[in-house]
Amino acid sequence: MRLEGVSAWAPDLTWSNARVAARLRLERMRLDSRRRAVGAPALSPEEAKLFQTSDRWVRRFIGFSERRFSCDGQGTSELAAQAARQLFDGLGQSASDIDGIIVASVTPTHLYSPPDASLLQHALGIPVWRGDAPRELKGADVSLACSSWVAALGLCYAQIRSGMARRILLIGADRMSATINWRDRGFATVLGDAGTATLCSSVDVADDWFEPQRFWSWLDGSHADIILTPAGGSKHPTPTREEVESGGHLLAMDGAAVRKVLVPFIGGPAMTTALAKAGLAFADLDVAILHEANLVLNESIVREWRELGFKGRVLSAGGRFGNTTSASVPLALALNADQLPVGTRLGLIGFGGGLSASFAFGTVRQALPAWTNVGAS
Amino acid sequence: MRLEGVSAWAPDLTWSNARVAARLRLERMRLDSRRRAVGAPALSPEEAKLFQTSDRWVRRFIGFSERRFSCDGQGTSELAAQAARQLFDGLGQSASDIDGIIVASVTPTHLYSPPDASLLQHALGIPVWRGDAPRELKGADVSLACSSWVAALGLCYAQIRSGMARRILLIGADRMSATINWRDRGFATVLGDAGTATLCSSVDVADDWFEPQRFWSWLDGSHADIILTPAGGSKHPTPTREEVESGGHLLAMDGAAVRKVLVPFIGGPAMTTALAKAGLAFADLDVAILHEANLVLNESIVREWRELGFKGRVLSAGGRFGNTTSASVPLALALNADQLPVGTRLGLIGFGGGLSASFAFGTVRQALPAWTNVGAS
Repeated sequence: MRLEGVSAWAPDLTWSNARVAARLRLERMRLDSRRRAVGAPALSPEEAKLFQTSDRWVRRFIGFSERRFSCDGQGTSELAAQAARQLFDGLGQSASDIDGIIVASVTPTHLYSPPDASLLQHALGIPVWRGDAPRELKGADVSLACSSWVAALGLCYAQIRSGMARRILLIGADRMSATINWRDRGFATVLGDAGTATLCSSVDVADDWFEPQRFWSWLDGSHADIILTPAGGSKHPTPTREEVESGGHLLAMDGAAVRKVLVPFIGGPAMTTALAKAGLAFADLDVAILHEANLVLNESIVREWRELGFKGRVLSAGGRFGNTTSASVPLALALNADQLPVGTRLGLIGFGGGLSASFAFGTVRQALPAWTNVGAS
Repeated sequence: MRLEGVSAWAPDLTWSNARVAARLRLERMRLDSRRRAVGAPALSPEEAKLFQTSDRWVRRFIGFSERRFSCDGQGTSELAAQAARQLFDGLGQSASDIDGIIVASVTPTHLYSPPDASLLQHALGIPVWRGDAPRELKGADVSLACSSWVAALGLCYAQIRSGMARRILLIGADRMSATINWRDRGFATVLGDAGTATLCSSVDVADDWFEPQRFWSWLDGSHADIILTPAGGSKHPTPTREEVESGGHLLAMDGAAVRKVLVPFIGGPAMTTALAKAGLAFADLDVAILHEANLVLNESIVREWRELGFKGRVLSAGGRFGNTTSASVPLALALNADQLPVGTRLGLIGFGGGLSASFAFGTVRQALPAWTNVGAS
């Protein structure tokens, strides 16, 4: 399998850290005045802290400067379709000969149905019929928290390597702004929206960027509660009015626990085990792209790798887009594709909620053309 | 790949058609009295019709007699874990040597995070470490409306056939009761809850039940609106109070359009194209298991197949569990496994929202052991 091209698209609307901080302040004032109106006690200092942040704090502890938000009506499939149109326009190809659509996302456009893969077929005008016979088009929406895209890349590889598909459009897209609880700076300072599209094509084994043993994944549900949405899923489908009011149907994170568990794990045994399975050493890795969870957290991970012998470069979106979940790794790929000459040995690493982690090691064997609507890195 | 065993688990709570009809009536009375209280006009006859059904009507036009519902707190991962425990107990094996968990579902236990694959790892006590190295466990939650399970079966096959995994636990589970709008008989008379677990194991090619070309899939988003949840997804994440009140965040269906589009398509060109790709004729098919969307609709499809030469048997859950979405095909497999002697040529067919369709043709090469908590078919 080859990555024939990659495209990233982010909405125009930019939110600086200062604007996020102001939005959290506004939310606190609203809550304060509602409490006063019903004679409830004022927010405690601990409660008030959840609304408090600043540009300086976010830059220092998260490393992000800004992010993009889409608008109501502009769901994940719209972000994905923009990226995919840009990809096929750039490649000078029509989308009509792809035989699969895999959508990596944790924020489906619609709950339950229709799947985003079907929405993409229609948005891109991919033909459904060839003469009087229906045309094959495999599809799936794939979700594995912040590991979704790398896990879905593995599923594309499995389908192409086994001869079940030849050209798969791999989407990585999330409208994470839809999941933000404005009463909790934890994720409000972190999340952003973006769509990406990557064309995965069948090539001869000699030109294959990957190998089956170059994918490694991991699941650990014992820490499931540290990145979790309490209400709204099938476990508790109908949140009470109070739960909705306090954002119980929105994503919550125990940031300290995430750092405590994931930094030593991804920084040590996960990476060494994944590399060993791939038959690689740290010194074999020219470039690493990590899911952009939080740049400061990622720096801690990379520091551990350095001690173990990693000498390569780390490419990222540079904190300009926030944590875009399923879009983060391909977004960094698209922004930095000019820094991936043929021969580059590349590590693509997703990790996060679940807990989950997903690794893919590949060698760039043909130039990777890339397009974005937001310039290069 | 071989299906080493299959298990289905349904909750104890049985809802007859009469109980569903009574629940809809109750909802109409509540709405009526709320309208009277605010001086709003009474329900029009057309509006009132949406609440009207009966045991006789459901049996005649849908073919279902009853279904099972789980309780609040018992999300999809709980249904899945029950089925998986029953599977490994039955097989006399521990779950600890599986290297992948694929969860086919449209009703994730939690929105956004954690994924059900991680919850299953923990619920089944699958080890995460082997000595001081983390143990590989691939995972993904896969969603493609009513085609989810057959599509996910194809992804299991791709991973095993390409050498990326050896033993995958394939879950097909949905708590569809969480998606029911009790103001609309359309889905209220149809949906049910169930969990299933299937162990997909690597075998020599000579013993392979499937082949890459025996999977065929299709997507058509031009009819996306006929099975759709208007609000609550990333396109429109925050339903208004009125939308929640009228069930805008719940699944809706245009049943007449579904029949009009899907019966001729699955009954004709989809099946003939999928068979042709597989190198099979209708006469080569001993058994077909269709997603149990609606038994009367499925009979219309099978009638079209008969005219084209299909002479095999159709196995189902017999209308006792409703439409369980991602669980329906493996539920029918588990209930009827004793009717699948070695050599049986089997068609597994999912179709529905998206629109989407997914076909798999296999040959039973070893007996398929099965377990359920609800007896045989």
